Amino acid sequence: MTDYSGIKPADLRALIRKGEITSPTSGMCNGYAQANLVVLPKDVAFDFLRFAVKNPKACPLLEVTDPGNRMLTEIATGADIATDIPRYRIYENGELTGEYTDVSSFWRDDLVSFLIGCSFSFEWELLAADIPVRHIEENRNVPMYNTNIACKSAGVFHGNMVVSMRPIPYELVSKAVQVTAAMPRVHGAPVHIGDPAAIGISSIDKPDYGDSVTIKAGEVPVFWPCGVTPQAVVMASKPEFCITHAPGHMFVADVKNVNLKY
Amino acid sequence: MTDYSGIKPADLRALIRKGEITSPTSGMCNGYAQANLVVLPKDVAFDFLRFAVKNPKACPLLEVTDPGNRMLTEIATGADIATDIPRYRIYENGELTGEYTDVSSFWRDDLVSFLIGCSFSFEWELLAADIPVRHIEENRNVPMYNTNIACKSAGVFHGNMVVSMRPIPYELVSKAVQVTAAMPRVHGAPVHIGDPAAIGISSIDKPDYGDSVTIKAGEVPVFWPCGVTPQAVVMASKPEFCITHAPGHMFVADVKNVNLKY
Repeated sequence: MTDYSGIKPADLRALIRKGEITSPTSGMCNGYAQANLVVLPKDVAFDFLRFAVKNPKACPLLEVTDPGNRMLTEIATGADIATDIPRYRIYENGELTGEYTDVSSFWRDDLVSFLIGCSFSFEWELLAADIPVRHIEENRNVPMYNTNIACKSAGVFHGNMVVSMRPIPYELVSKAVQVTAAMPRVHGAPVHIGDPAAIGISSIDKPDYGDSVTIKAGEVPVFWPCGVTPQAVVMASKPEFCITHAPGHMFVADVKNVNLKY
Repeated sequence: MTDYSGIKPADLRALIRKGEITSPTSGMCNGYAQANLVVLPKDVAFDFLRFAVKNPKACPLLEVTDPGNRMLTEIATGADIATDIPRYRIYENGELTGEYTDVSSFWRDDLVSFLIGCSFSFEWELLAADIPVRHIEENRNVPMYNTNIACKSAGVFHGNMVVSMRPIPYELVSKAVQVTAAMPRVHGAPVHIGDPAAIGISSIDKPDYGDSVTIKAGEVPVFWPCGVTPQAVVMASKPEFCITHAPGHMFVADVKNVNLKY
């Protein structure tokens, strides 16, 4: 398997556009931010934008495109959002209707793209601060859970927050809060520390998305707002048409993680 | 003149609603945030919301209402945005058509209200950190200037950033950056430090809005993004209908400044 950790984002995106990379983007372009994608028709995009603004921890916006425009202008140069992600999903009326490596042929003049920050960015910072990130150590996907934490509603969009969990040694919890709080554009500080039941999680060993990870003695589960929240909320509202990235197949931006720091 | 510095925001708003206060809100409800108001019809509100999201330093959003809803839900409880500001301005096609102390009779079902953070909040923090705020010392309005710093455009909304200026002693400039950077929801860190000409300001003694203030020897002009930016941009785009607060007559929120800190 080719190592894409040291490649420039623009070069990576060119390979993705040519169909030469169709795999998850974890570990690619070290130091650069990756982003979640939600694409919606303009008639519901205003409400979704209001939803994101009301819930900035779960839905931190990195870029919102002009309606119909496939080219990004803020977090990347020369990037075509319909071709530069390795794998997409299309949903119609809330039902998954297909996975594609290019969605050009489905593009419409009324589509607005939302690029949303991803916790991949702060995980580099945690590691740099010598805070362990268990799912990376165990080579799994991060465990994610539905919670009873209500998001603020906007129009048709409503639902509860989805969180990601990382077990942190007690003596490093305060440091982990500080490191991630400094990056509000990629979810920021934890939303909960400790007892999973307090936020409606009944079984920490059975995540609703991703994989379970080991929690060692002397560690506390720490929960961060998760970029799956907007996707879960959008799916529940069953818009007529929606494009997202496929899980783990993110948009790789020209923005360095260090520049997303507060 | 009655001292409203120690009153609770809800009590102040009740007096404003009854028409008993129609004056500028500077110095009222110490410790609580005040906000700029822009009200627009829904057909241009999506583009304005995109403009604000693209330009968060100049247009930090504290709340965006549901279309038609006069009641705020996030930064204040029981607040009616059509009655709870001491003085409003109404613009039609970019022309000021009147000032009012209540805009209930002009309300429409398609209006969306944007509450935007105000540098009043970080001035308290500067003073608390023993950093002088000259226009408060001199009992003037803060000096504000048009610049050549382009905002990012969205739909019909485009224009340059308006900045506020505070002269800061050289040895306190770094501290002033840190104190204000910790409050990104009320404009955050300075956008420029030093030579006014570098951002297109030809005469520091002739502000485009507000009053000039004394710059002493050993002080450097420090420029922050200003909440006048969204108003200037909206006026330039000449929407069919728009309500704003009258200058200095802000919305007083239930949110404490300390809770707007990062």
